Amino acid sequence: MELKSLEPQQLDDFQRIAQASYDQLKEENLSLDLTRGKPSAAQLDLSNELDGILDGFYLLQDGTDVRNYGGILGIPEARHFGAELMGIDSSETMVAGNSSLTLMYNLIAQMLPIWQEQAQAVDNKVKFICLVPGYDRHFTICEHFDIEMINVELKPSGPDMDAIESLLADDEMIKGIWCVPKYSNPTGHTYDKSTVERFARLKDVAGKNFRIMWDNAYLVHHLSDKPDSLHNIMLEAKKAGSEDSLAIFASSSKVTFAGAGIAFYGASEENLGKFEKFLSPQVIGFDKVNQLRHVRFLRDQETLAVHMDKHKDLLKPKFQLVQERLESGIGGLGIAEWTRPNGGYFVSLTTLPGIAGTVVTMAADAGVKLTPAGATFPYGVDAKDTNIRIAPTFPSVGDLEKAMDVLVACLKLASANELLIP
Amino acid sequence: MELKSLEPQQLDDFQRIAQASYDQLKEENLSLDLTRGKPSAAQLDLSNELDGILDGFYLLQDGTDVRNYGGILGIPEARHFGAELMGIDSSETMVAGNSSLTLMYNLIAQMLPIWQEQAQAVDNKVKFICLVPGYDRHFTICEHFDIEMINVELKPSGPDMDAIESLLADDEMIKGIWCVPKYSNPTGHTYDKSTVERFARLKDVAGKNFRIMWDNAYLVHHLSDKPDSLHNIMLEAKKAGSEDSLAIFASSSKVTFAGAGIAFYGASEENLGKFEKFLSPQVIGFDKVNQLRHVRFLRDQETLAVHMDKHKDLLKPKFQLVQERLESGIGGLGIAEWTRPNGGYFVSLTTLPGIAGTVVTMAADAGVKLTPAGATFPYGVDAKDTNIRIAPTFPSVGDLEKAMDVLVACLKLASANELLIP
Repeated sequence: MELKSLEPQQLDDFQRIAQASYDQLKEENLSLDLTRGKPSAAQLDLSNELDGILDGFYLLQDGTDVRNYGGILGIPEARHFGAELMGIDSSETMVAGNSSLTLMYNLIAQMLPIWQEQAQAVDNKVKFICLVPGYDRHFTICEHFDIEMINVELKPSGPDMDAIESLLADDEMIKGIWCVPKYSNPTGHTYDKSTVERFARLKDVAGKNFRIMWDNAYLVHHLSDKPDSLHNIMLEAKKAGSEDSLAIFASSSKVTFAGAGIAFYGASEENLGKFEKFLSPQVIGFDKVNQLRHVRFLRDQETLAVHMDKHKDLLKPKFQLVQERLESGIGGLGIAEWTRPNGGYFVSLTTLPGIAGTVVTMAADAGVKLTPAGATFPYGVDAKDTNIRIAPTFPSVGDLEKAMDVLVACLKLASANELLIP
Repeated sequence: MELKSLEPQQLDDFQRIAQASYDQLKEENLSLDLTRGKPSAAQLDLSNELDGILDGFYLLQDGTDVRNYGGILGIPEARHFGAELMGIDSSETMVAGNSSLTLMYNLIAQMLPIWQEQAQAVDNKVKFICLVPGYDRHFTICEHFDIEMINVELKPSGPDMDAIESLLADDEMIKGIWCVPKYSNPTGHTYDKSTVERFARLKDVAGKNFRIMWDNAYLVHHLSDKPDSLHNIMLEAKKAGSEDSLAIFASSSKVTFAGAGIAFYGASEENLGKFEKFLSPQVIGFDKVNQLRHVRFLRDQETLAVHMDKHKDLLKPKFQLVQERLESGIGGLGIAEWTRPNGGYFVSLTTLPGIAGTVVTMAADAGVKLTPAGATFPYGVDAKDTNIRIAPTFPSVGDLEKAMDVLVACLKLASANELLIP
């Protein structure tokens, strides 16, 4: 029965029981962390073979010694691998260091003077569309560069494309959009084919030098035996003649070692050349030894798929646990909705309006750290205060069980408190 | 006998012989490269143990799993190593990815808005002092950020400190100076104690937010059993209260793998904290796995010294060869001067005025690539056209012999041609 349909006395009883079980959990002096999308040690162990895999062999087919300087675009073997991963050509692929975030940051840094010049000419500001809820580190880059952010809702069916197209048509100074098109952070949604097709045609309505920041961070990170499939945007962009508006990112961070993987950038050859030139004053070349390690270890898309299945085996029980605990704890109470992703690293939970922050604080008081409420929104402001991002990958199953008990208790208590307010 | 003291007929004979030997070398269709300061394969082999050294152990003393995300300042073990290397405290040390150049670039990017604001207020431009001849990649960073460069001569005794102090006193918009204080690129000079002391007091004459870019790239890269010693600038800066003007850089690029090493940054704790904050939008953390590899491999300063001795054994014959060929080929002719460094990666050669470019072109025509003339000067302009940078580390001894023969032939011919002009 839904909580809001209870009689006052029933709700009062519910609140008292919720308070009691919250207080009890508080006494356990827990110290658990569900904040970030980090792989667990068991997942990292899957790639321990990386260190030592080169066995003294450092030469590429073309004679390049990967231990020496040079080569901003990356080694050909890794570019080939990244190209197949992203569904583009090797000539459109760059392989860099351990962070795709660094590539995104630099791409914005490269474009900014061009955008700003245009903004000054029309006495306007550079703006970006941010799909919400979304990834806080995307928003931080915009804040860092003083790019104004405009929220557009990410619905279960995908981004609100009507809203996006209309915003772009109205304001030529909207110069980009952040996307996590597959197993989106935090909702886990994957854009459907027609959404991808509409993205590929955004250039037609957008102002000059518009960029789609297509952060395909979870493209092979399935949690289900029936994984989502994402339509190839480069293919569509080529049909629409909009390749230059596309900036594709991927990385091996949640494939091998989170802090010591390799990052991929996909773009038209022209854009790739410009980006290489932009990077050349700051780096002679990225770590080619680690690129070669990754190619030797991950080999090809088939080997990668087998490897990702092992991640899935480790992650599936955790995501199932989250679903079970939410269902058994608050299912049918009408106090929250949550996503059931087929992949990625998060479950996104929507509370009653105005209490997400309270729930996170209550959980913290009971020793369970959650991602700060609002973090999934630009400027850290979730106007409705309803979104909570659950990151179940890092803790052990035992810790996760405990943390979910706390979250459920907090959700019940905070919701009851909210409904009791006259 | 000096070439310029020859009778016209003698000079004519000299020129004819020089031309003949140049033509003969040209017929050999050589393809040799003395352009960049790259370690040779044999040097890189010294560090092959790096790959596989972790042997499945990824946990630090403090419990950190180096395979996972986080930690922009680097792992404590590597910070300790870097601190000892640079002669500063661990709390003043950051360890990053494979490129100290990236750190320098980011430091300039961090300071630029502060500098530019001040420049606009006084209707002036941000400027840097560049010691010449110097390192082209330093100058490229200034060009990239539109920072005006002012040349100051690097004499054998060190930088012209009188000129530097007087420039700084005259123009508060000179916001920095690039230095390679030990085994300088390309001259091989090491600053003496009084120079270091004067550097530490530059803050007293410079404008606000002045930065000494102390690129200590060759600090343990000795070529002699009687190595140069560099006075500790942080020590002096603390005496002078000028720590905040100091930005120290070092790296393992020419210690282990040139493209896959780790980079160090040293600064006051306050500056380090600000830099960490500046970097946080672009990177979650640098490659800690590779940092741990390096600490396991290089261990401490004593182990490092033994390792660098092996580099010395490989490099010394090459640098001796350069000296011998120059001495036997053009010694006493009065047509060139060159440095005899105790360490580093280069020999700097000064030709007769106006012919360095010609020599480089002639060498290229004979199949020997040299660093482009002018590259060691801001904007690529060596006003006197006299400086040639010789980089003997990468080629084999056999190739180096041949390349030096070509260089000597070009120097003789170009000098004779120059002196023959009425």
